[in-house]
Amino acid sequence: MNYQKNVSTDLIADGYVTIIAGPCAIESREQLDTIAKIVKESGLSFLRAGAYKPRTSPYSFQGLEHKGLEMLKEIGDKYGLYTTSEVTDAETVSEVAKYIDILQIGTRNMSNFALLKKVGAVAKEQKKKVVLKRGWASTIKEWLLAVEYITSQSDEEVILCERGIRTFEPYTRFTLDLSAVPVIKKLSKLPIIIDPSHAVGQSDLVIPMSRAAIAVGADGIIVEIHNEPEKALCDGQQALNEKQTADMLAQIRKIAATLGKKIR
Amino acid sequence: MNYQKNVSTDLIADGYVTIIAGPCAIESREQLDTIAKIVKESGLSFLRAGAYKPRTSPYSFQGLEHKGLEMLKEIGDKYGLYTTSEVTDAETVSEVAKYIDILQIGTRNMSNFALLKKVGAVAKEQKKKVVLKRGWASTIKEWLLAVEYITSQSDEEVILCERGIRTFEPYTRFTLDLSAVPVIKKLSKLPIIIDPSHAVGQSDLVIPMSRAAIAVGADGIIVEIHNEPEKALCDGQQALNEKQTADMLAQIRKIAATLGKKIR
Amino acid sequence: MNYQKNVSTDLIADGYVTIIAGPCAIESREQLDTIAKIVKESGLSFLRAGAYKPRTSPYSFQGLEHKGLEMLKEIGDKYGLYTTSEVTDAETVSEVAKYIDILQIGTRNMSNFALLKKVGAVAKEQKKKVVLKRGWASTIKEWLLAVEYITSQSDEEVILCERGIRTFEPYTRFTLDLSAVPVIKKLSKLPIIIDPSHAVGQSDLVIPMSRAAIAVGADGIIVEIHNEPEKALCDGQQALNEKQTADMLAQIRKIAATLGKKIR
Amino acid sequence: MNYQKNVSTDLIADGYVTIIAGPCAIESREQLDTIAKIVKESGLSFLRAGAYKPRTSPYSFQGLEHKGLEMLKEIGDKYGLYTTSEVTDAETVSEVAKYIDILQIGTRNMSNFALLKKVGAVAKEQKKKVVLKRGWASTIKEWLLAVEYITSQSDEEVILCERGIRTFEPYTRFTLDLSAVPVIKKLSKLPIIIDPSHAVGQSDLVIPMSRAAIAVGADGIIVEIHNEPEKALCDGQQALNEKQTADMLAQIRKIAATLGKKIR
Repeated sequence: MNYQKNVSTDLIADGYVTIIAGPCAIESREQLDTIAKIVKESGLSFLRAGAYKPRTSPYSFQGLEHKGLEMLKEIGDKYGLYTTSEVTDAETVSEVAKYIDILQIGTRNMSNFALLKKVGAVAKEQKKKVVLKRGWASTIKEWLLAVEYITSQSDEEVILCERGIRTFEPYTRFTLDLSAVPVIKKLSKLPIIIDPSHAVGQSDLVIPMSRAAIAVGADGIIVEIHNEPEKALCDGQQALNEKQTADMLAQIRKIAATLGKKIR
Repeated sequence: MNYQKNVSTDLIADGYVTIIAGPCAIESREQLDTIAKIVKESGLSFLRAGAYKPRTSPYSFQGLEHKGLEMLKEIGDKYGLYTTSEVTDAETVSEVAKYIDILQIGTRNMSNFALLKKVGAVAKEQKKKVVLKRGWASTIKEWLLAVEYITSQSDEEVILCERGIRTFEPYTRFTLDLSAVPVIKKLSKLPIIIDPSHAVGQSDLVIPMSRAAIAVGADGIIVEIHNEPEKALCDGQQALNEKQTADMLAQIRKIAATLGKKIR
Repeated sequence: MNYQKNVSTDLIADGYVTIIAGPCAIESREQLDTIAKIVKESGLSFLRAGAYKPRTSPYSFQGLEHKGLEMLKEIGDKYGLYTTSEVTDAETVSEVAKYIDILQIGTRNMSNFALLKKVGAVAKEQKKKVVLKRGWASTIKEWLLAVEYITSQSDEEVILCERGIRTFEPYTRFTLDLSAVPVIKKLSKLPIIIDPSHAVGQSDLVIPMSRAAIAVGADGIIVEIHNEPEKALCDGQQALNEKQTADMLAQIRKIAATLGKKIR
Repeated sequence: MNYQKNVSTDLIADGYVTIIAGPCAIESREQLDTIAKIVKESGLSFLRAGAYKPRTSPYSFQGLEHKGLEMLKEIGDKYGLYTTSEVTDAETVSEVAKYIDILQIGTRNMSNFALLKKVGAVAKEQKKKVVLKRGWASTIKEWLLAVEYITSQSDEEVILCERGIRTFEPYTRFTLDLSAVPVIKKLSKLPIIIDPSHAVGQSDLVIPMSRAAIAVGADGIIVEIHNEPEKALCDGQQALNEKQTADMLAQIRKIAATLGKKIR
């Protein structure tokens, strides 16, 4: 089989909701290949996978780092998938950007202004799009101001990503603030996608929250999937397996249709 | 025109999502009649309207109280609509219950255990259903335990209602926690509905959040509508007008259909 | 020994910080007598003890109720201590008030406006003071407006009590907001006391937080103590034992002195 | 007058509470000189002043950057004061460290793990102490794990700094969590200081909160002062003027004495 990239290089496109899927972390070439194949054969075009993992504890698995990026580039090319991965460090952004299509800034770094400015500069230089996750305790206004740190350096598109805010409720990891979607649409022209996986932290809650994300008007979702969630090195309890991924896509496809959109 | 009540007296029914609509507060017979007519002619069966209004300030409009209840009964009967209103006080529950079909316990009273027990006893005696809103800073576990105060007195159905939790985000009045829906479905057999109006506090955000509520799997929504929102005595900025109500219903009807449900 | 009441009947007095101490719940005459003796012999004048206990679960110990109140009156009289206990129900306020000197409204009922109005009316009729705890997710502005529900009925003194707000931090039960003290002093003339016990939920944290409460300028503290914390029926892990109580008093006495105040 | 540095180079010392004072931002040589003189003549030994200012908006004053650092070194030397300033960027840490005695990591960067590791490496190399502020939505456990990112690189002392957490209360900028002090003392051997200025955001609230910070057992405070708060380029509303600084010191000296400590 000869895999091809979609013609459009845009993460966001009118009439579409974009699904970015993949593992929390790149664990091995085999693991990434298997999951990328699922992504491609599900009809999707965007692969997410972490190479540099910011972890609460320095003793947790920190990712395969540069070796992971090489795998990501290789496998993205093999399957014709656009790739996104987190950049965590101003010093390495320029190098990391060479291997991926979309630069992702994580929730812990939303107010790391040195990183934001550097990402803006690299995005301009290398023509990369940027996904900026909301800080888990950042207001919508602070989030929009953080965008300005990036766009002060670059005209490349910035896509916002709501991934849950920290509240008192202990049952879910975070509380997904879906009202951020219509609020962002009201206050700005920026696209916004939803990360249901990190917000709820449990795979059986991810599917209904994905439906809600599409229904509320998000431009896409970024979701963690894994061929063997129970063996994942990172956040396996929130990853969808292949069967759940198919179910989720079937369900959100219908929701998207009610809004006149297709998924891709 | 001869209005008739639906055959089913249940708030919740398999294959349906239930829409409860009406004004924040009963302001006059004319206002309530006009709004009830909109509700009925929209094909809905449940009318909400506040007679006793718990307000943050004692100097705000407190509702028409008993006189309001009489209007609610009269107009519910006229249009064949089931009615719900908030009970705020153990001393008057028994009297209030005579005028309405569903007893509603508000967010401020979720942990008013004396009221919960009284509502349970009255629900049993007068065969009334109960809607229990989540305390705005109550965990899901505390909410489920609050239900036990009611059901320790009665076998009548208790319907949960998520209406937003308090967070640091100032743009919306509260943060609607839609993940409460799949969590409640996982932990209990209780029905759960969503109140998008109080959560977001702005009418233009209510429609997308209603879509999300249906998509996530809620059994219904309770929504504030008004014939003249700009003149409402209470919370007018979050009420849908007639046109917006029709738009909302059209949109959620399609979402419900993707889940194999009809609205009513 | 012949115990006498203090001459002053005021909870709050210029130049003093008032310590209200006692068990979470009245468990038996012997338990209450033992603890009241500790309170009295520590030189204090105010005894707290719960008769009606609002508990998250209906299956937890709910207090000795009316029988507890009779014990509280008897033992308060025996030791010459002013007494305070929580009122949870508008229907019983008038009866409960006969047995105690200060009516306490708990955090779960801060926005139970029916109760607030009733407490105001009873306070006026029976000349009782009122302690109004802050709702655990209520803003300072909402708290001050809740006072108005009481004072719209009565001129008797209302004392505010900060007892911790709900945040994301799981280590402590709640987060004690000590800045509420200078804020309340700035916005109103109301006295304010601190409940460190419910906020932190662990006895070894209570002493330093008590010191801080006095240092920040609180007019008093209300603290849980127990003769045998490890056997307490309710919240034993946060109660100070006799030795800890003595330590705490010794420490806060010195802090109070730096502000020109005595403890009582 | 010939100013001399204290003999001890430690930020934290048994029997002392350490007061670090100075302006939010270095604005000019004259401003910094005037304020440093106040600090020195108040009997203090530590000067804080921002050269690189992380600001929510890229359009706010960002600090004098490298030029500011040079002034800070010059004026610290002139008055014999130890200096601390925020490091915001892994790329410049090594250079910045040459100009100051204590490296400060701000609340927005508590989970910027690339920065933490770099600061640890530079602290080791240049023998610098580190102050790590708590993320405004970080749990105490996450905070202690963040320390490990620094200490995995260095044995130099890390001092924690509580500066307020984000809650629903709008009156204060943040809610100062003073219970973090006894909790940290219970869980670790790390010193902990308090920043009352950023937490409350209003100068008249800073003094009582400083008293509480000392009373609860903090090892020190870091406080914003300014010769002309009303003209400050950054956060002037929360800075103490010279008179307020003197009042604050007089008050906390007395509180410290009750705990057997001196201020310095």
